[in-house]
Amino acid sequence: MTSPEVIPDKRLPTNVRFSTASTVLAAETEIVDGSGRPERDGSTHEALGPVIFMGQLFSLMPIAGYTGSDPRDVRMLVRSVRFVYACLTLFLMVSFTVLLVAYVAQESMFGVKQAAALSYYAFIVFFMMELMLLGRNWARIMGRWYADELPFRSAPYFPPANTLPLRRKVCLIAFGLMAFAFLEDTLNFISAYRLNELHIRYCPHRSNFWKNFFHREHPYVVRVVPYHPLLGWTIEVTMRIAKFAWHYVDVFIICLGLGLQRRFVQFNERLERLDGQPQSQGIWRSLRLDFVRLTELVGFVDRRFSKLILFSCANDMLSITVQLYNSFDLKPTTATTVYFWYSLGFLIARCVTMLFIVSSVSQASERPLETLRRFPSSNWNLDLRRLCDAAATAENALSGKRFFFIRRPLILAMAGTIITYELVLMDQVKKEPDNTKDCKF
Amino acid sequence: MTSPEVIPDKRLPTNVRFSTASTVLAAETEIVDGSGRPERDGSTHEALGPVIFMGQLFSLMPIAGYTGSDPRDVRMLVRSVRFVYACLTLFLMVSFTVLLVAYVAQESMFGVKQAAALSYYAFIVFFMMELMLLGRNWARIMGRWYADELPFRSAPYFPPANTLPLRRKVCLIAFGLMAFAFLEDTLNFISAYRLNELHIRYCPHRSNFWKNFFHREHPYVVRVVPYHPLLGWTIEVTMRIAKFAWHYVDVFIICLGLGLQRRFVQFNERLERLDGQPQSQGIWRSLRLDFVRLTELVGFVDRRFSKLILFSCANDMLSITVQLYNSFDLKPTTATTVYFWYSLGFLIARCVTMLFIVSSVSQASERPLETLRRFPSSNWNLDLRRLCDAAATAENALSGKRFFFIRRPLILAMAGTIITYELVLMDQVKKEPDNTKDCKF
Amino acid sequence: MTSPEVIPDKRLPTNVRFSTASTVLAAETEIVDGSGRPERDGSTHEALGPVIFMGQLFSLMPIAGYTGSDPRDVRMLVRSVRFVYACLTLFLMVSFTVLLVAYVAQESMFGVKQAAALSYYAFIVFFMMELMLLGRNWARIMGRWYADELPFRSAPYFPPANTLPLRRKVCLIAFGLMAFAFLEDTLNFISAYRLNELHIRYCPHRSNFWKNFFHREHPYVVRVVPYHPLLGWTIEVTMRIAKFAWHYVDVFIICLGLGLQRRFVQFNERLERLDGQPQSQGIWRSLRLDFVRLTELVGFVDRRFSKLILFSCANDMLSITVQLYNSFDLKPTTATTVYFWYSLGFLIARCVTMLFIVSSVSQASERPLETLRRFPSSNWNLDLRRLCDAAATAENALSGKRFFFIRRPLILAMAGTIITYELVLMDQVKKEPDNTKDCKF
Amino acid sequence: MTSPEVIPDKRLPTNVRFSTASTVLAAETEIVDGSGRPERDGSTHEALGPVIFMGQLFSLMPIAGYTGSDPRDVRMLVRSVRFVYACLTLFLMVSFTVLLVAYVAQESMFGVKQAAALSYYAFIVFFMMELMLLGRNWARIMGRWYADELPFRSAPYFPPANTLPLRRKVCLIAFGLMAFAFLEDTLNFISAYRLNELHIRYCPHRSNFWKNFFHREHPYVVRVVPYHPLLGWTIEVTMRIAKFAWHYVDVFIICLGLGLQRRFVQFNERLERLDGQPQSQGIWRSLRLDFVRLTELVGFVDRRFSKLILFSCANDMLSITVQLYNSFDLKPTTATTVYFWYSLGFLIARCVTMLFIVSSVSQASERPLETLRRFPSSNWNLDLRRLCDAAATAENALSGKRFFFIRRPLILAMAGTIITYELVLMDQVKKEPDNTKDCKF
Repeated sequence: MTSPEVIPDKRLPTNVRFSTASTVLAAETEIVDGSGRPERDGSTHEALGPVIFMGQLFSLMPIAGYTGSDPRDVRMLVRSVRFVYACLTLFLMVSFTVLLVAYVAQESMFGVKQAAALSYYAFIVFFMMELMLLGRNWARIMGRWYADELPFRSAPYFPPANTLPLRRKVCLIAFGLMAFAFLEDTLNFISAYRLNELHIRYCPHRSNFWKNFFHREHPYVVRVVPYHPLLGWTIEVTMRIAKFAWHYVDVFIICLGLGLQRRFVQFNERLERLDGQPQSQGIWRSLRLDFVRLTELVGFVDRRFSKLILFSCANDMLSITVQLYNSFDLKPTTATTVYFWYSLGFLIARCVTMLFIVSSVSQASERPLETLRRFPSSNWNLDLRRLCDAAATAENALSGKRFFFIRRPLILAMAGTIITYELVLMDQVKKEPDNTKDCKF
Repeated sequence: MTSPEVIPDKRLPTNVRFSTASTVLAAETEIVDGSGRPERDGSTHEALGPVIFMGQLFSLMPIAGYTGSDPRDVRMLVRSVRFVYACLTLFLMVSFTVLLVAYVAQESMFGVKQAAALSYYAFIVFFMMELMLLGRNWARIMGRWYADELPFRSAPYFPPANTLPLRRKVCLIAFGLMAFAFLEDTLNFISAYRLNELHIRYCPHRSNFWKNFFHREHPYVVRVVPYHPLLGWTIEVTMRIAKFAWHYVDVFIICLGLGLQRRFVQFNERLERLDGQPQSQGIWRSLRLDFVRLTELVGFVDRRFSKLILFSCANDMLSITVQLYNSFDLKPTTATTVYFWYSLGFLIARCVTMLFIVSSVSQASERPLETLRRFPSSNWNLDLRRLCDAAATAENALSGKRFFFIRRPLILAMAGTIITYELVLMDQVKKEPDNTKDCKF
Repeated sequence: MTSPEVIPDKRLPTNVRFSTASTVLAAETEIVDGSGRPERDGSTHEALGPVIFMGQLFSLMPIAGYTGSDPRDVRMLVRSVRFVYACLTLFLMVSFTVLLVAYVAQESMFGVKQAAALSYYAFIVFFMMELMLLGRNWARIMGRWYADELPFRSAPYFPPANTLPLRRKVCLIAFGLMAFAFLEDTLNFISAYRLNELHIRYCPHRSNFWKNFFHREHPYVVRVVPYHPLLGWTIEVTMRIAKFAWHYVDVFIICLGLGLQRRFVQFNERLERLDGQPQSQGIWRSLRLDFVRLTELVGFVDRRFSKLILFSCANDMLSITVQLYNSFDLKPTTATTVYFWYSLGFLIARCVTMLFIVSSVSQASERPLETLRRFPSSNWNLDLRRLCDAAATAENALSGKRFFFIRRPLILAMAGTIITYELVLMDQVKKEPDNTKDCKF
Repeated sequence: MTSPEVIPDKRLPTNVRFSTASTVLAAETEIVDGSGRPERDGSTHEALGPVIFMGQLFSLMPIAGYTGSDPRDVRMLVRSVRFVYACLTLFLMVSFTVLLVAYVAQESMFGVKQAAALSYYAFIVFFMMELMLLGRNWARIMGRWYADELPFRSAPYFPPANTLPLRRKVCLIAFGLMAFAFLEDTLNFISAYRLNELHIRYCPHRSNFWKNFFHREHPYVVRVVPYHPLLGWTIEVTMRIAKFAWHYVDVFIICLGLGLQRRFVQFNERLERLDGQPQSQGIWRSLRLDFVRLTELVGFVDRRFSKLILFSCANDMLSITVQLYNSFDLKPTTATTVYFWYSLGFLIARCVTMLFIVSSVSQASERPLETLRRFPSSNWNLDLRRLCDAAATAENALSGKRFFFIRRPLILAMAGTIITYELVLMDQVKKEPDNTKDCKF
């Protein structure tokens, strides 16, 4: 009760008791293997630190105090540089979205490309706002997570065998993906640059290279606000920052999945270390309570992040469908071709990685049921039975607002849906005009 | 047995015993929080009163005595104004449907638009008749519901925290939705008015504005019956009344869902108040019986209303598909554009709201299983175990004649189906002729 | 063992013990309601008698001795009129199929219509052969069914309330459907007659009405064999007999479903009569064994008939898809239009009726689980618990070779698939040539 | 522990204890039927021997020592003829794939045919490499399998009734399928030969028959490397060897399925022999442990082979879709027509056979649950209950990386998906040019 790390949560007043019970009972009669793994596993809160820092570079999650070890220190300071930075980016993006809506409404041509552009903006704005709201509740969210995973960070649980420490694993995957995203962004710029060169060659009355560049890339803004190089670069930089929000959300969800999955892996490894040997009822009770705690943690994380997951999956599906649809177009320059295929490949890889890692939470939570079958009937007791029941009936999976649960078959269902849409859309391809040599704008 | 509120139901003679058992046992050993929530929760019967009154304005549910607190007082009087009103509207709608069928058969052009118009009429006639049949059995239906929810209206159950009283919540949602529907109707009229203006401008031999208006809107009637302004307005008013039946059914189903979901929320809140503390076997028995009673109530409501739900969902899916299909057409006037997009958005919002609220019944019924895992094994007993089994295996969801159960994933499945149909239908769009400037009729 | 009605079955040697146990235990402590329902329920074997007789009119199921009360008397006599009749029809159909294949291969035009015609023939031949094989095993199949349903035909089970006796219900549905099928056949003939009249009017060199008729209807035969009126009528009559096999299989499966569903209804009615009152362990054991027996009966029936069910469903789906596809064609005569829409409606109604009734087996088998929740925990015992488990985990549904189980949601899935196929096929419609005025053949 | 056949597996240290327990307990109190089936069932390791030998003819699975009875003797020798053969084929195939990619990229026409060709090559290279990796681990994989199935090879288990010995059954199916594959290959060659004859007749400037043949069949290679008859034949032979890898993987997976399914059948036959008679707790414990062992074996096999299964299913679906798509093309020669339809039929049959046999593993593992319901409640004990639970909750099915589980309904889902894709693709058919008379290349 006096443990400083436990933050009381109104909706689950019993988790304090849980943690106490399991701390007391743990390592009581179990045979701990002394194979030199005495290190304490890091908390998810600490592991997410660098990822949040990376997000702040792109104006996301403007919170302070997230580098400390205690999640209760996290604050969202309104009078801080990061908050102002975040608000500025958000304001600019909202403005651009409004301008784009006005542009599309006025031109009254609403096809696949326009719908894709609009939803791209809408998703980014939504992600920025949702991450800001999550930042405001970050201390509560991480406090609960921290308390629930506390027993898993010391004996009788050990860091999973044959894997990196959580913090390093999270960093590796997150920074790796973002590096690929950075390459995608660079290729995108080179492609736009080349297309602009090509355009100017076709339309000789255009002289100012960068003016034409910004006109081509952001016509809806430049039509309203008079052109100035500074304005052009502001839009360009804002858009590139915003694009990272688009990548960042997937990366962020991956990190959540890694944190949850690790705990189930630890739980199962402990079960496997028991090796089918009879255990005291106390051990079983502690195991059962740990499993229930994990189940409730997954439910809690799901309630907090499932809106983000829902929109992230919707965004991924839409983006992949649109990019595949565009794959039938001719590409005017080699740089565009390279960019296009790289971008498509990266998009698919990012989405599949996200779904694969998040679905491994559900995967890992199903293993204990199999391991439990090996324990002899002579050791059968009520807590073991309730643990079996809990493992069989609990839904340990993150979801998109419970419209869908992220499990392996979902990946197949999404792929099948995208292929069907693509085949049906194939007929519409020829109807989009080629605007490379269009000198009007 | 002497309780005046209990209406015996032949198919479930045990529910009287249920209610007695749980009333006796309730509040026995439980610690009731005295946090100032002594008020008694309202019955679903009372909450539905204003909704039924609203329906009667549009000639639906011609029953009397539904405002009292005792559902057994509800009567369907054949010699009443509302019944005559309902029959008149129904008769007119059936006539129009017959005329429309004759019109379509004679013109022998049967495309997407004709099929949509025909099914629109058929659905409305079905809804009117089904609601009339439900009205005839209303005393029995509500009597059973009243008896089954009785224990939930007094201690140890309390109205759910942080939410409006049932009656006010039902009214808010129902009247809110109907207000939006009224706006939709108004926009529809303005759009038709503008289209008529446009038509008369193109076809100068047409002089009588309203005659042309009714000819355009209801050609199949005016072709048969000689035109008279009174006739025109009768058709127009009848059609607008009938259109509300179309909106009303969704609203009605929403209200049923709200009533059921509330009880599961109450059940789970009581469980959570127990806070994982050991309880006497009597408490567990009463909890188990209450849960079983709720399960049987959901089953009863489902048997009575699932035909309505099935047709309502079919209607919604068809309407959304047809409206989306029409979205590819050009709109001749701004009023039409505004009406069209508002109508499409309202349709989707209405349908999603309905599915979302009804699926939350199933959602709420799954929570107890999670809460029950927190109770210690020392308190394990047969009733607790059977309660766990019942929570794990019961299908607490409304359905469309059991062809589908309304749960969250259904919404996704419906959306996916509509998108597929839409993409496939896209090719057919160009084949519909534009009839704005067609002066023939 | 000495019971004359029990036929030993190698794969289930325990069913004899089952029946004895349940007969001994039944009606022991139960309160039987004396409400004047002392009559003994008929066996499925007896109920199917008239249906089999009807099939024999169309050369199907050439068995003898099926009218008696003992299913072991059923024999398949090779030297009987019905067997010769069946073989003759089968031989003619196989010949026609071969001629059709040759015709299609030679013309080398293989579109939707040709594929539909070929599969129509193939399905009919398959149905004829499969029903002949079932006829050969009929004594064994019905013997097992007879033995397994024996306990349900006497107290403590009663015929279900508010429903017809099994035999009359089966007859009503079977003969009703076949009457509609007869009407369909008549309309088909009238339509073909009218189309022939029209054709002769367009092509004046054709003089012989009937010769032209058979040329039009069965070109692939008349091309090979020289025309003779007798030949023409033989083909025509054979084809019409064969068409009834096509309808008959659906009707036959409906009757199987009715027989199975009734037993589950009886089981549940007995449970409901117990009214949640504590029962002796013997009663529960007998109830459990009866339920297990029903589950095994459904499994047995499924193993024997699932091939027929699979092909019947495939046939229905294909026929409906093809008929809907044809609905976009123009119909040259009114008789053709009437026939076409009646045929389409009848097809859909027949298929939905079949799926609905067969899926009600699964529906009825889920009811006991709900009823069992009402029994008090004081009466809890091992047999009651195992009965609950059996009701929760048993798959009491007929299937198509276990590729799909016939439950309610299947109907929706099939409808959705057909609609998708139809929408996609819509584009192909214009490519089929109109052959009304084609005077070549 | 001293048993020479048991190979310790790190992840499941308990399987040694399992095997000992069940060997000791087996045949204790059971009544063994002396019906002359004393023979010992063969191991899956021995049954797979001829299949592996067949693969080695086509350069797959270059392992040695697989013909002995002890799976631990299997070695993969780098300095052996088979390994060099395998590497050479793999190297050639990789080279061809690279050349094909270069060819497609240069021609910049990327349609259905090009995508199909590329994926055909990619799948073959993947299969070759995956089988090589499996070969390296073969001793471990088969060692575990051998140990786990050991109890099933002696009393109280017997070879399943009415079926061939495992080795003969595996050989029959595997060699049968490969014989059909050989016929397919021959027809393919004849068709290519005839097409070449036709081509030379149209393009008279071509004189060298075989040069033209190789130019037609493998343009991407011959364009780069100067033509020489030896080169042509090398490519041709390599391609035909590689094509067998394509067939071989399906056959290989079938054999795995046969091995697993047999054990579940044996388990269920033993249960049925017990005939519902009460058994000692020891028997039930041994039965439960045997079932758990089978479940873990299925899981182990699934983890090792599911990548192969995933790609094999993907390959089958893609091949069938592409072949069906090609079925709309005109075939220039009769040999091509015969080859084409035979190839399509064989492809579908091979894929359905594979799915059907692999899904029968899951089918067979569901039978015990039904059989267990027949045992009397007087014999109820903890091990029997846990066996029931294990049978109800275990997922005994092979999977494609757990994206999908191979059960019967999967076959229907795949068929439905292919039909949908085909109907949608129908519109694209006319856009592929006919290249029979194209004399350019």
